[in-house]
Amino acid sequence: MAERHMPPPLRFLLAARRSELHGLEALAGTCELVLKISALVHALQKERGYSNLTLCGDDERLLPALAGLSDEAGAVEADARAFLDGLETGAAASAGRARLLNCIAYALFRLDELPRLRRQVRDRRVPAHEADSRFTLVIASLLAVVVEAADSALDAGVTRNLVALLNFMQGKELSGQERACGVMGFTAGWFSDEQKARMLGLAANQARSFDSFAQYAQDAPLQCWEQARQHDPQVQRMRDMAQRTSDTQRVDGSLAGLWFDLCTARIDAMRDVETRLAHDLAQHCARRIAETRQELDDRRLLLSRYADHASGRAPSLVFSVQSRILDAPPQDGVGKELERSILDMMREQALRMQRADDALSSVRGALDESKRIDRAKLLLISRYGLAEPAAHERLQRAAMDGGLSLAEAARRIVEQLGEG
Amino acid sequence: MAERHMPPPLRFLLAARRSELHGLEALAGTCELVLKISALVHALQKERGYSNLTLCGDDERLLPALAGLSDEAGAVEADARAFLDGLETGAAASAGRARLLNCIAYALFRLDELPRLRRQVRDRRVPAHEADSRFTLVIASLLAVVVEAADSALDAGVTRNLVALLNFMQGKELSGQERACGVMGFTAGWFSDEQKARMLGLAANQARSFDSFAQYAQDAPLQCWEQARQHDPQVQRMRDMAQRTSDTQRVDGSLAGLWFDLCTARIDAMRDVETRLAHDLAQHCARRIAETRQELDDRRLLLSRYADHASGRAPSLVFSVQSRILDAPPQDGVGKELERSILDMMREQALRMQRADDALSSVRGALDESKRIDRAKLLLISRYGLAEPAAHERLQRAAMDGGLSLAEAARRIVEQLGEG
Repeated sequence: MAERHMPPPLRFLLAARRSELHGLEALAGTCELVLKISALVHALQKERGYSNLTLCGDDERLLPALAGLSDEAGAVEADARAFLDGLETGAAASAGRARLLNCIAYALFRLDELPRLRRQVRDRRVPAHEADSRFTLVIASLLAVVVEAADSALDAGVTRNLVALLNFMQGKELSGQERACGVMGFTAGWFSDEQKARMLGLAANQARSFDSFAQYAQDAPLQCWEQARQHDPQVQRMRDMAQRTSDTQRVDGSLAGLWFDLCTARIDAMRDVETRLAHDLAQHCARRIAETRQELDDRRLLLSRYADHASGRAPSLVFSVQSRILDAPPQDGVGKELERSILDMMREQALRMQRADDALSSVRGALDESKRIDRAKLLLISRYGLAEPAAHERLQRAAMDGGLSLAEAARRIVEQLGEG
Repeated sequence: MAERHMPPPLRFLLAARRSELHGLEALAGTCELVLKISALVHALQKERGYSNLTLCGDDERLLPALAGLSDEAGAVEADARAFLDGLETGAAASAGRARLLNCIAYALFRLDELPRLRRQVRDRRVPAHEADSRFTLVIASLLAVVVEAADSALDAGVTRNLVALLNFMQGKELSGQERACGVMGFTAGWFSDEQKARMLGLAANQARSFDSFAQYAQDAPLQCWEQARQHDPQVQRMRDMAQRTSDTQRVDGSLAGLWFDLCTARIDAMRDVETRLAHDLAQHCARRIAETRQELDDRRLLLSRYADHASGRAPSLVFSVQSRILDAPPQDGVGKELERSILDMMREQALRMQRADDALSSVRGALDESKRIDRAKLLLISRYGLAEPAAHERLQRAAMDGGLSLAEAARRIVEQLGEG
């Protein structure tokens, strides 16, 4: 029996399944967006690191390599932009994508700044710390898109993968910032108290992000991550060394190159984990789509058989089935069985959806910290007219002074500003 | 400047707003669905009450009036079904509507039972309490659709109105059940202990539902509700009378008609409040759509002016604006002002969306009780193979025995069955 001739309850039963399928298909697009953003973030992290090295030293020979990295980042960016262009129309035509689209608007705004920044780096018309914080601003705006993407996903399994990836990306970004901060300190030969505090904060927050990643990741990327940690002891030794420096206890400036190479090897290894996570995410999403499509086909076939069977007896399956039961005990038991099967199917579907919803809320809770940090920054910016880096610094200082995590400091700020 | 020629950040800023608008437009459809369902529930409540009266007594003169009520309910049902038919295609083509569609499938399944039930009532081939519980099952399946509709709404203000309406509908439905239960007791001349407990439970749960309604409703429907409560003292007197009856202390059977008329007047007055709530809901939704559309138009105009202004200076607004700021202090301050305006707009939009999201989660929490009750019933049905009325009775008994509210009893059942 064709679906449009089925009794309405069965049609709606199938429509419910189809709505799930549409949700998963939209999610596949979101996952692709996240993969493209993670590639772009990686390219920009590399470019930021090399810009830093270039601006801190005075080795003109670094310039061609930097130009190569800029070109690479530009190509990845063009790819991401082309994808976004296609996304815009589709996403705006559906409800519930407003926050994601707004985040993308902001990220694009920040990306538009890159050509100018690159020229200034090339011509050495910008101090290292300023170039660093401007690259960081662009990357932060891209990570915010991933947070929104994870928050708008409607499947618990996919969201879980997205949360693992997001936390890993945040940890990796903090490693990139640590690399930059270290290059500046080692080039100078010593770290100021402020730089030392920043290095400690970056290491602590990295550990926190990777712990969250480990909590949500599956076995394969976790094993990959264990391998990537081979650089950790060396990194830790250089971190300790940085903490022991002072104005009067300087180290050789050439350590900057060593630190840079070590951090870069570590970040490149992280990129392998990230690629693995992204691959798993895409696979998980594709598998869920295939499963749901198969279930939809099976169910459609089953229900059309029911409907055919019933229509031999009465115009409407459900009506005929129920009238048999309610009037008198059925002669052959078929009617009763049919009604039970359909009711069971509806109930099983309802229960499954409720469970999926619970699982989704619980894994989404993991995004609350990231969202709260973004919100605290936005509030600081809009209430005190701070620039974004200043807002971030204020939040970091609040965390450091109070001995709190960034998320906890953000929570207090949101409460204090009357938005709790 | 046409929107498609605007710089990408501005296009996405508008796309975000458009996504909000689409969400509100979909919501208008959901609100219409709820209005149609509330009309159908009201018609079925009337029909159930009259069926009860007919089956309890033996007055053949009631039959024509009952036939009239059945026809009325049938007409309202046809209207609701026509609306649902249109909804199916649209809703199934969008994500996140699966639970709503599944609920509708189940409600349609239950509605298909009505013609048979009506014939049995007319021919007196069904006991009053069974007809009553079968009508109640249909109505419960319709109320579940309203719960899902409220849960899938993306606007806090509209959800608030939906929650007020839903609680009111639940209270009104309990009043309808109390009317039926009272008719049976007064016709017999006395109430059994079980019937007395049920009457007390129905009154207590009604009070709870109306309290929740009052918490979320606006002034106009609240005033309307105060007027409708003029019947309360009389109803309370008859409730007290019912509690004093026993096998040896009977009252006159003709009190059944009095009780029925009194409850019916009360329920009709409730219908006025319900209509007022439904009207407010539709109006609120229409106002939000008009506002959002106006804001979208304003913003589009503003952004296209910015873009025009900037394109006189450089190919891309954002690029030109930022390059002015970053290179050197701007000569005329225009560039800086433009960048600030756009950034402010993005941030204001992001903050507004975050706040709306918080408000939405908090008002949605009010639906948790209804959802938990449905879930506990589904679990009882699927674990113990209970029929739906038996599951409901089991839940009610658990509440009564433990001195708990239905919601609290449901919470314990969900926990016990390993789903907490």
